[in-house]
Amino acid sequence: MSQTDGGYIPDLSDIHLAHARIRKLVRQTPVINDPGLDEILGCRLFCKCENLQRTGAFKFRGATHAIARMREDGTAGNVATHSSGNHGAALALAARLDGRTAHVVMPENSSRIKIDAVRGYGGQVHFCAATNEARAERLEALVQQGMIPIHPYDDANIIAGQGTAALELEQAVPSLEQVITPIGGGGLISGTAIATRAWGVSIYGVEPSGAADTVESLLRGEIATAFQPDTIADGLRAIVGQRNFRVIRELVKQVLTVSDDEIREAMTLTWQTLKLVIEPSSATVIAAIRKHPEIFGGHKVGAIISGGNIHPADWCALTGTSSDPR
Amino acid sequence: MSQTDGGYIPDLSDIHLAHARIRKLVRQTPVINDPGLDEILGCRLFCKCENLQRTGAFKFRGATHAIARMREDGTAGNVATHSSGNHGAALALAARLDGRTAHVVMPENSSRIKIDAVRGYGGQVHFCAATNEARAERLEALVQQGMIPIHPYDDANIIAGQGTAALELEQAVPSLEQVITPIGGGGLISGTAIATRAWGVSIYGVEPSGAADTVESLLRGEIATAFQPDTIADGLRAIVGQRNFRVIRELVKQVLTVSDDEIREAMTLTWQTLKLVIEPSSATVIAAIRKHPEIFGGHKVGAIISGGNIHPADWCALTGTSSDPR
Repeated sequence: MSQTDGGYIPDLSDIHLAHARIRKLVRQTPVINDPGLDEILGCRLFCKCENLQRTGAFKFRGATHAIARMREDGTAGNVATHSSGNHGAALALAARLDGRTAHVVMPENSSRIKIDAVRGYGGQVHFCAATNEARAERLEALVQQGMIPIHPYDDANIIAGQGTAALELEQAVPSLEQVITPIGGGGLISGTAIATRAWGVSIYGVEPSGAADTVESLLRGEIATAFQPDTIADGLRAIVGQRNFRVIRELVKQVLTVSDDEIREAMTLTWQTLKLVIEPSSATVIAAIRKHPEIFGGHKVGAIISGGNIHPADWCALTGTSSDPR
Repeated sequence: MSQTDGGYIPDLSDIHLAHARIRKLVRQTPVINDPGLDEILGCRLFCKCENLQRTGAFKFRGATHAIARMREDGTAGNVATHSSGNHGAALALAARLDGRTAHVVMPENSSRIKIDAVRGYGGQVHFCAATNEARAERLEALVQQGMIPIHPYDDANIIAGQGTAALELEQAVPSLEQVITPIGGGGLISGTAIATRAWGVSIYGVEPSGAADTVESLLRGEIATAFQPDTIADGLRAIVGQRNFRVIRELVKQVLTVSDDEIREAMTLTWQTLKLVIEPSSATVIAAIRKHPEIFGGHKVGAIISGGNIHPADWCALTGTSSDPR
């Protein structure tokens, strides 16, 4: 677990082992290509639809893997974490499927659908103020009570689990030239980078302009821990983790940024072409590819569509498409 | 083609041949199950996601098959049809991929997204008044000009093509006990019934209460040609076809009806559980399963999710979820 593995960073074999452990528990999500979207983007884009993963996000892979390792190691007991939502819901279900309970610290301003999801999957929600300090304090209190902490992204088992999506993507679509994922805490991009580096794929990350803590951290050469995020992409407000930052610095070719408006447009474009509802965090990858033809144009690109947990009312309000189009 | 095959109704072997012809041209769409949705519906539901088919609907299968047969038979020339939208878009793309042009007669009140789709796929749109007579006249005029008519549903090649979705569903999920599809003109239910009867599956159809012409036709023992549809499910306003009616009478166990409000609720439920945007026509199957636990409860059910072509603004307006949920 994150508290005890001394900063270990998984390698490709760890990700293959993780896939063997969780393969029967996670959904092998479809990979979708749409020629119409390709025309608009000017590249061949293959989307790994983790928005169709159980609990509606890739997070279920990492959480399921962390729990699987606990079972392997004979570690009993309940788990605890802090999460803006998707990791909490994923851990809640992964724990329940293994006969455990997940205790999830969530900021009071979390979206309704994500709070309901954590509870719906059997998790216990513990609210706290929307600050990193309050979050850490609340979690520490739970750990004192004996819960085993599962960090949302700065954890070797979580990173290995998240990397399994890229493994399946490569199996479905060999010879990708580029891969892109969003960056929140960095669990998905880390696992993806470790999984795909062997194939000589160029790895890109994307952050909302209002949550570009990774870009700032790369410029500074150290993690911008004091960064205050402000974006509609609620899944990407976390500050990049230690292990994750090390992996990104070493393996990621470039971290791009997109505005909230570009995210909104990408949400609508994705609906109209791929027929998928995706949360703002996921739309960042489509927005980035559209924004940077000089990088992606003419290439064979793989994207991890990270999640689809957004309330219809939030979707309509965010994209401003509540009036009749005719 | 519908004008020349003397009312021929395809059999299972025709559907297997159709699949062999179109397999490389259509998308093998994913089959999705969601345990959360199963809990709500009280059955095990496997959704064949034709909303993720090329052109956003199962119609691309039938249209691609009709064109493939023309090529096989050495029939040159352009094609024509009338369509509320999805068949028109499907035929437009299928024709373009074969170097032909599709001329599509559409009612003036067709939804913007469907008109744009037909044009976007290279089809020529010919508007007419929103009556069956005006539609038939306009099409006849095109046929006089030498276009080859491809009927949207009352056509053996179309029915065989639509049946290929059920073949793939059964390959993905053997031992289904029940299958359900929407009924518009009856192309999908006919192909599905012919494809699945061999497996002893009980076949159900569903219509909006405001477009229950098939239910009325079954009661009368003849097609209710004068029926005036009134429903938000714009894909299901057609009157059931001759061949289709014969197949339904022989093979479909029951045709259910759902209200527009039940359709709206099912659209939102599908978003929240399957993370898919589906058009009202597709939501009828989810609504029917939810409405009839005495039929589907405890069973292993397959559903064809027929299409996902709805403008975000229309989705938001129809489901009344444009305000913030908190």
